[in-house]
Amino acid sequence: MTHAYYNPEHHGAYELIGIGDLALASGATLRDCRLAVALHGQLNSAKDNAILIPTWYSGTSKIIEDVFIGAGRAIDPAKYFIIVVNQLGNGLSSSPHNTAGPHARAGFPSIAIADDVSAQHRLLTEHLGINSLALVMGGSMGAQQAYEWAVRYPSMVHRLAAIAGSARTSEVNQLIADAIMHGLRTDPGFAGGNYADSTAVSEGLKQHARLMTLHGLSADFFEQRHYQAMGFATVADFVEGFMTPYFAPMDPNALITMLEKWRGADVGHGCGGDLAAALGRITAKTLVLPITQDLYFPPAICHCDAQLIAQTRFTSIDSPFGHLALFGADASWLQQVDAELTALLR
Amino acid sequence: MTHAYYNPEHHGAYELIGIGDLALASGATLRDCRLAVALHGQLNSAKDNAILIPTWYSGTSKIIEDVFIGAGRAIDPAKYFIIVVNQLGNGLSSSPHNTAGPHARAGFPSIAIADDVSAQHRLLTEHLGINSLALVMGGSMGAQQAYEWAVRYPSMVHRLAAIAGSARTSEVNQLIADAIMHGLRTDPGFAGGNYADSTAVSEGLKQHARLMTLHGLSADFFEQRHYQAMGFATVADFVEGFMTPYFAPMDPNALITMLEKWRGADVGHGCGGDLAAALGRITAKTLVLPITQDLYFPPAICHCDAQLIAQTRFTSIDSPFGHLALFGADASWLQQVDAELTALLR
Repeated sequence: MTHAYYNPEHHGAYELIGIGDLALASGATLRDCRLAVALHGQLNSAKDNAILIPTWYSGTSKIIEDVFIGAGRAIDPAKYFIIVVNQLGNGLSSSPHNTAGPHARAGFPSIAIADDVSAQHRLLTEHLGINSLALVMGGSMGAQQAYEWAVRYPSMVHRLAAIAGSARTSEVNQLIADAIMHGLRTDPGFAGGNYADSTAVSEGLKQHARLMTLHGLSADFFEQRHYQAMGFATVADFVEGFMTPYFAPMDPNALITMLEKWRGADVGHGCGGDLAAALGRITAKTLVLPITQDLYFPPAICHCDAQLIAQTRFTSIDSPFGHLALFGADASWLQQVDAELTALLR
Repeated sequence: MTHAYYNPEHHGAYELIGIGDLALASGATLRDCRLAVALHGQLNSAKDNAILIPTWYSGTSKIIEDVFIGAGRAIDPAKYFIIVVNQLGNGLSSSPHNTAGPHARAGFPSIAIADDVSAQHRLLTEHLGINSLALVMGGSMGAQQAYEWAVRYPSMVHRLAAIAGSARTSEVNQLIADAIMHGLRTDPGFAGGNYADSTAVSEGLKQHARLMTLHGLSADFFEQRHYQAMGFATVADFVEGFMTPYFAPMDPNALITMLEKWRGADVGHGCGGDLAAALGRITAKTLVLPITQDLYFPPAICHCDAQLIAQTRFTSIDSPFGHLALFGADASWLQQVDAELTALLR
């Protein structure tokens, strides 16, 4: 199955690993679930050097590799066996466009963060022979998956790093997700998810880019004109030249699958909605690392999570890029994150 | 002409004053232009106690009266002759729904801030016999009109108070306006502006309420749960119980007329786009009063304006309500604004 955007040419090498039928939190079953997995480094004989990194919204294993993994970095393939798993619905793993039958495209079932973690747990234990994780880390929705891991499988997860993400999606964050989904769904070309291709939904994707610009970056980014260092003269130029083309080739059904998952994220789901009880289960040495200017996951929200976890270091790192510091364009932010991860792994 | 929302029952007493045909900045002519005007107090014999207050986005003379005017307040009808003018397109003055002929509804011409000021100038000089203003003040789009007044008619404007507004709409602010308009226009019920009534555009108006919530308030408002003091249990409850019903009865064509005007606001239009040259024309004693947490008109933008005006006091007042402190629910903010206005008028 080929797709103009969701392929190794755009996202680097990955293996497609079939993990069988996956029973979803919704009650539906995702048949022949496949995870797109990028592996780096070697599992040591003690099998205790594995690091799991699930992807964030709209991203794939490629951007995780570009931003976090490298020789001499905290996440160094010479030291660790690094498993980057593309989240369900992201276009590389099982997703609306690459699923056949009744679950194809607009019929793709609703996925929860818990489903990703169930799928990843099966991948690790049944396919990769891993029962211990030196670290589960992620940014944004990747952090949401990492939290779910540490809550569900505390004995497996020795360290947890939640970067620019929270254990439960805040109500404001839900409102942002609603606004973004509205823009995609109300494009007449969306046709209830039965569009021919992404170009039919280009107006909805433009609105998506506008809202990602307004909430993904920060007031500092615009006031200090950081877009100019990226080669864009004006905010409009940045939206048209960077944000819009970045999201334009993505599949709206995939984006909505991820947005619904983001909107519903809550590690308390297994504890009757009790966030404190859920986070109280975590035994991992934990690093909670919000971005000071993040409008999706503001430090105050992340601090509430941190206070409910036994062994936590909480520190907020400044970046004018706001949430999209995750894209790696802010060298200073990235350097501080690396230092924090290095200390966590020591 | 009656309308379920735009009438004195909802907005208090006002006079409809016909000012004749108005040549617009766009080149079109608005025939039989009418301004809805609410007058308070008496013009003194020296004719030097007039205060002009144009309205902000979606508001009318009613909210201006409720928030700013009263006995013992800075804007006291016992001392001043107060002229509250509803901006063009706001539903009470000439607007899409109350205009006949080719300019009715979807055919309503594009209006600029400059057009409002031209209309108000004619109202004052030709109908009310006023050639001197003790103060022109406004919040948000009202501040944009006030700036335009002080730039165009410096000898008439003795004092200027720009509250939570800027002389030129920033690019980020334009992006917000684009996102809000997109939500209204893409509702299938909008039908290019030819809907039967506002209820046909209820989904677009819901998206409008979401985006007004996300940008109109502030992170502090949500993190500190100020909506609970207003009687709403959750953010969703606040959106459904306050923001959505507040905007639901408004006319989408009117909202778009105002949003386009907001988006294009720039006092530099008469000076070849030169903001410094335009603001340099101001001789009024000026008060620039942003709200610290305002996401539409952040203090940094307002400070740039202030630096270009000769006699300015700039001070940013804190409010967790962000831009919507203008609604008057934050007593502390309002008290500080009153003190600043009292000092300006001294």
